[in-house]
Amino acid sequence: MSDVKKVVLAYSGGLDTSVIVKWLQETYDCEVVTFTADIGQGEEVEPARAKAQALGVKEIHIEDLREEFVRDYVYPMFRANTLYEGEYLLGTSIARPLIARRLIEIADQTGADAISHGATGKGNDQVRFELGAYALKPGVKVIAPWREWDLNSREKLMAYCHQHDIPVDFSSKKKSPYSMDANLLHISYEGGILEDPWAEAEEDMWRWSVSPEAAPDTPTYIELTYERGDIVAIDGVPMKPHEVLEKLNTLGGDNGIGRLDIVENRYVGMKSRGCYETPGGTIMLRAHRAIESLTLDREEAHLKDELMPKYAEVIYNGYWWSPERRMLQAAIDETQKNVSGVVRMKLYKGSATVAGRRSDQSLFDESIATFEDDAGAYDQKDAEGFIKLNALRLRIAAGKGRRQD
Amino acid sequence: MSDVKKVVLAYSGGLDTSVIVKWLQETYDCEVVTFTADIGQGEEVEPARAKAQALGVKEIHIEDLREEFVRDYVYPMFRANTLYEGEYLLGTSIARPLIARRLIEIADQTGADAISHGATGKGNDQVRFELGAYALKPGVKVIAPWREWDLNSREKLMAYCHQHDIPVDFSSKKKSPYSMDANLLHISYEGGILEDPWAEAEEDMWRWSVSPEAAPDTPTYIELTYERGDIVAIDGVPMKPHEVLEKLNTLGGDNGIGRLDIVENRYVGMKSRGCYETPGGTIMLRAHRAIESLTLDREEAHLKDELMPKYAEVIYNGYWWSPERRMLQAAIDETQKNVSGVVRMKLYKGSATVAGRRSDQSLFDESIATFEDDAGAYDQKDAEGFIKLNALRLRIAAGKGRRQD
Amino acid sequence: MSDVKKVVLAYSGGLDTSVIVKWLQETYDCEVVTFTADIGQGEEVEPARAKAQALGVKEIHIEDLREEFVRDYVYPMFRANTLYEGEYLLGTSIARPLIARRLIEIADQTGADAISHGATGKGNDQVRFELGAYALKPGVKVIAPWREWDLNSREKLMAYCHQHDIPVDFSSKKKSPYSMDANLLHISYEGGILEDPWAEAEEDMWRWSVSPEAAPDTPTYIELTYERGDIVAIDGVPMKPHEVLEKLNTLGGDNGIGRLDIVENRYVGMKSRGCYETPGGTIMLRAHRAIESLTLDREEAHLKDELMPKYAEVIYNGYWWSPERRMLQAAIDETQKNVSGVVRMKLYKGSATVAGRRSDQSLFDESIATFEDDAGAYDQKDAEGFIKLNALRLRIAAGKGRRQD
Amino acid sequence: MSDVKKVVLAYSGGLDTSVIVKWLQETYDCEVVTFTADIGQGEEVEPARAKAQALGVKEIHIEDLREEFVRDYVYPMFRANTLYEGEYLLGTSIARPLIARRLIEIADQTGADAISHGATGKGNDQVRFELGAYALKPGVKVIAPWREWDLNSREKLMAYCHQHDIPVDFSSKKKSPYSMDANLLHISYEGGILEDPWAEAEEDMWRWSVSPEAAPDTPTYIELTYERGDIVAIDGVPMKPHEVLEKLNTLGGDNGIGRLDIVENRYVGMKSRGCYETPGGTIMLRAHRAIESLTLDREEAHLKDELMPKYAEVIYNGYWWSPERRMLQAAIDETQKNVSGVVRMKLYKGSATVAGRRSDQSLFDESIATFEDDAGAYDQKDAEGFIKLNALRLRIAAGKGRRQD
Repeated sequence: MSDVKKVVLAYSGGLDTSVIVKWLQETYDCEVVTFTADIGQGEEVEPARAKAQALGVKEIHIEDLREEFVRDYVYPMFRANTLYEGEYLLGTSIARPLIARRLIEIADQTGADAISHGATGKGNDQVRFELGAYALKPGVKVIAPWREWDLNSREKLMAYCHQHDIPVDFSSKKKSPYSMDANLLHISYEGGILEDPWAEAEEDMWRWSVSPEAAPDTPTYIELTYERGDIVAIDGVPMKPHEVLEKLNTLGGDNGIGRLDIVENRYVGMKSRGCYETPGGTIMLRAHRAIESLTLDREEAHLKDELMPKYAEVIYNGYWWSPERRMLQAAIDETQKNVSGVVRMKLYKGSATVAGRRSDQSLFDESIATFEDDAGAYDQKDAEGFIKLNALRLRIAAGKGRRQD
Repeated sequence: MSDVKKVVLAYSGGLDTSVIVKWLQETYDCEVVTFTADIGQGEEVEPARAKAQALGVKEIHIEDLREEFVRDYVYPMFRANTLYEGEYLLGTSIARPLIARRLIEIADQTGADAISHGATGKGNDQVRFELGAYALKPGVKVIAPWREWDLNSREKLMAYCHQHDIPVDFSSKKKSPYSMDANLLHISYEGGILEDPWAEAEEDMWRWSVSPEAAPDTPTYIELTYERGDIVAIDGVPMKPHEVLEKLNTLGGDNGIGRLDIVENRYVGMKSRGCYETPGGTIMLRAHRAIESLTLDREEAHLKDELMPKYAEVIYNGYWWSPERRMLQAAIDETQKNVSGVVRMKLYKGSATVAGRRSDQSLFDESIATFEDDAGAYDQKDAEGFIKLNALRLRIAAGKGRRQD
Repeated sequence: MSDVKKVVLAYSGGLDTSVIVKWLQETYDCEVVTFTADIGQGEEVEPARAKAQALGVKEIHIEDLREEFVRDYVYPMFRANTLYEGEYLLGTSIARPLIARRLIEIADQTGADAISHGATGKGNDQVRFELGAYALKPGVKVIAPWREWDLNSREKLMAYCHQHDIPVDFSSKKKSPYSMDANLLHISYEGGILEDPWAEAEEDMWRWSVSPEAAPDTPTYIELTYERGDIVAIDGVPMKPHEVLEKLNTLGGDNGIGRLDIVENRYVGMKSRGCYETPGGTIMLRAHRAIESLTLDREEAHLKDELMPKYAEVIYNGYWWSPERRMLQAAIDETQKNVSGVVRMKLYKGSATVAGRRSDQSLFDESIATFEDDAGAYDQKDAEGFIKLNALRLRIAAGKGRRQD
Repeated sequence: MSDVKKVVLAYSGGLDTSVIVKWLQETYDCEVVTFTADIGQGEEVEPARAKAQALGVKEIHIEDLREEFVRDYVYPMFRANTLYEGEYLLGTSIARPLIARRLIEIADQTGADAISHGATGKGNDQVRFELGAYALKPGVKVIAPWREWDLNSREKLMAYCHQHDIPVDFSSKKKSPYSMDANLLHISYEGGILEDPWAEAEEDMWRWSVSPEAAPDTPTYIELTYERGDIVAIDGVPMKPHEVLEKLNTLGGDNGIGRLDIVENRYVGMKSRGCYETPGGTIMLRAHRAIESLTLDREEAHLKDELMPKYAEVIYNGYWWSPERRMLQAAIDETQKNVSGVVRMKLYKGSATVAGRRSDQSLFDESIATFEDDAGAYDQKDAEGFIKLNALRLRIAAGKGRRQD
């Protein structure tokens, strides 16, 4: 195992990845480079520096990737109205390709020959990290400690810390019973009582949103301005992508919006139960559909809907850095050039509903759609021929005795 | 035009279709048979009898089709988690094939050679009625008065009534400014101020649901029992399909659930703005996804999601009675044989959320999914090979210089 | 009908469109502008000038569009390996959008307010011409004489010619019993004895190819050079797109390649029987798949295959100038940037088969694929984990009693 | 490794699987049960009995599965016009699920706790065998010697034989330089000079077909009778499914039909070059499309084409025994109930072309499709409305300034 000389680790500063630093140094007798990113998880990243230093790490990378994360990953994904299995907004999935890319870039900069991460062998994240890494640097060595070591219980981890002088009390917060992951798009919860799909999540599990019951008794209205498929302003105030999402998270969370409780199918073949808070994303999804409803042609809209499940699967499974994702993205982005305008949303006790939408690119034509006199804009007699020819194949079949009922 | 001898009219008992009775008698010099169905629109159908008699109709068909409607049309559609353009639950679309079939069956019984309906030449309903009719009886003559006559304003209609002694005050209710359609699945609103997509619907437009603001301050929990994809009991009480939907409409409406405000793409080529109340359907959609999340295999679930937009389009466009709908239904129904179990739903101020799901057919395996020790049920080392081979094509491409970023 | 002042007619110089010139002048009392294009139909276009002049046409447009036709329409379509209903290479369909565009451009240049064409009311071509025209100039008036006039038999047409001094003997060639259409991509035959799907086409119907029986007894080998999905050279000789197709038509025709006899589904709702000769296109299709087999990633290749039927339908139905075609094209073109290399084809008595393919962009990796020792390029043990995790969902289901057989 | 007591081996009687018998006995100290099936590979299976006995095997299963193979696997697959990557007829893939099922059934009958096969760790067959086995018997142990042992060269295999008294001269035939697999549907060739995709296959590689050059100079015509999507008679002579395929193999092979030379994408992530001979299947594919062209509705035909690539991928990847395959099969089979009639095929020097098709279930309607007077069966004026409404969305977009060119 001594062929690894330097490894870049996705380092959170938490207990698990701190153990990994030490374990890598010891097991592979190699230098460890840490990489810690602020992608909006809501915790300070700077403290990771001292912790890494204490573990003997010399090359420490700490970065604020919030803008890049939302601009280059979250926004493109939302252009497709992406939902995995009809419900999940892919909050964890969409952050992984960015982390994978930075791991590889830092490996290239620092001359490292390996990367490492703290994802377990049962989950999707290992797949996402590693597929990304291999796609960007095919010869890279990947070390996944959770698949290698025998520290497969909290007790063994603690014993290891004790043995290696790793300070255990990394946080004054009470250890959550849930496995969590957070970034600007969402926070996720798994494990604990959630392992029983019949059990309702406890109220104090949720961290970013108040309950609908505790939300204000009066609705909040906001206006979102879109340009080419992306939100560029809230209530007329121009914002950068990550500022948009931060603002929407606050607005959504305050109104009890964005909680989701599902059983999903992991790429590794098992079902798992997860709870997610995606306050801003939930608002964005509905608002994007609303602006598209005015500005997209019917057939491109329908084609997008047919492609979306595949696109979601590609991202969920970890293939962001793949030809098929690029191909789908090319189709999706082609449709967004006219997706501009304003959507008015009502936020109230758990619901984000559309209250209005307008666009200079609107294809809604009141003069045609009206129930009133349309002054000849639409000739109702055309409908007869339209129906007759669309019915022709059915009539021929019925005439030949085929039954459709 | 004298070749029509007898025509079966879809007769609501309202002003417009009463005018059509008279207009058909006069224009085609033919006998008119009326057909009025209770599909849960929430109005008495029996009064249509006297009105038809007063118009000189001799063959009057009045039927309660609620059970058949939900059992044979709504339920099969919900097995696919069907949404048109990501949002619309197809409340109007799904009632049309049933009406079309009964029109044709009554035509066959009464020896009529034509059918007629009160749908306009701009909408989808004319298409749905007529495609259905042609598919079931290819030689039938279809008369669509709105595409033929010149009574294209309220004033002209009134004048016609006056002239032909048709009692105008059919209803004591104030005439709604909206064009509406209702059945057990939903009520729809179009026209009036809704023709401006920026204008929010007025609160007093909605008829079936209280506003989320006016809904109770405490949530309601219910348990829905599924068998093979369909709800068969609420809170343990067995019910017929239409009883299920009636009950869920009440529960949903009381909790402000099921309001939808969208701009949609009509099959005839224009965009239109519609508001819909689908209280029970909204609950059913989320609950069905929840029971499927436990009981469907991943790949069949994903394939269903990929086929759904097409299936929704087929129904929206009026092709229920078509080979392609049957083909899709065969695929969908094949997946539902294990979709049995119980879903617990929380209804609260506009939201229907899943609080739990359980099933004897569950494919969720706690012993594998657990974050705790799984006693060897899953070998984490398998993940490495899984990732390596899935990455192989990406690695080869990257090794040959292809860039994915 | 007097609101039309000037109309641009797609004029072939043949009898039917000559009648249309006169009929338009007379019926609409308008000026007729003729447009005749060489798109490789194999007949001189210049003679159309004198004929138009004789009919009193003042603005006569005659153009050589062969290069544009192949470069901007045929080539992009072949990037998708496009086949309608699994067999038809869309030879007629792909020429229509170009004609539609030129009709509209000439209408704009000449100040015409209408266009006209000689397609009948039963076929696809009327749809293709008119959808294109409306998409490019929404207010244009379209005149389709075959849907308007009563000259619906050869006798009536002849009588009309006689009456209006239109010279009937436009061609010394014996009138074919088939309805034909030709361009650089193909020649089509319909009607006559082909209206019986059981009847085999007569040998003397075919015009571009010898029969396989009559083709040379020794095979011809050629090498096609691809760059980014398009053929740029034959046997190392660089050629323009239309030169490539002309050359391949000759090579294919000489070897009995490209005859097709099918029953297809028209967009207007009926089935029709057609025979097609597409010598060059048949070679191109197979060769393109061969170069893609080396250079495309698996998943993008599969996604292309899944999108192809839709793309073919879009073109067949006449929606080249549509957002959905652009969206699909964006996806397709995204995949072609590495589709470069050389394919060696064997042409022999009706068959075009692949004899070899090579590419600098090849993703074929002999060191991995080899049956011999691969020096560690591929670790066979990875396969176990790959299979185990892919089987997991099936094993769980089987473990819970689900049967798959 | 001593936990295996009895293992069922897919035994060909050849050298490799004979070595495996011995290796399993030795390595696992277990009893080996052999299973040898005649699926039309064209070699006697009975000689495998003596060879197995010589190796000390006590439970020997030798079966003729030809009828079951074609009836339950090949025929259902052909109903979908299945092609992997546009070209490959899946000859190897479709045999694996049958073998997997029999292995499991024999394991159940004999009380074996494991199965084994001779597929290598680089190919698709290991995946197909093992996914099938796990789907049918989730707890089964699978032993894949090629992934475990170190006999990874011919020399080592020979040494092993020598050492264990395994007679090496199993066959008097000269060892082919290719890796081959055969069954009633096809014979495949890989390896050797084929590892260079530029190299043309040598003529003497092909075993089932003469070269097109060597085929008869006059065409052969045959008539294939279909019932519900399957061929039931040739030239009016009723035959069982496997008899049909045997006959078509002879007819096709005699006429040089069914050779294919491709580079394909394996499920394990690499490209490989393969040559295939599928004489009967090639005829069946074209003929099935022909009978469908008369009898299928347009929209179901198109939907089948859209689903086919997925269905092919499912089979190629080894998921025959899966919910997604069943779901797709349900959709496909639903369409076949009217696919009955007769197809006339011309076989000539490498080409199988359609010369005619007829059906009592035909949807081809001469009275409508005719170029002659149709006596009012089709009203050409309907086309105008059809086109106008289909164009409406495009016209609105163009009217608002959107450009489609």
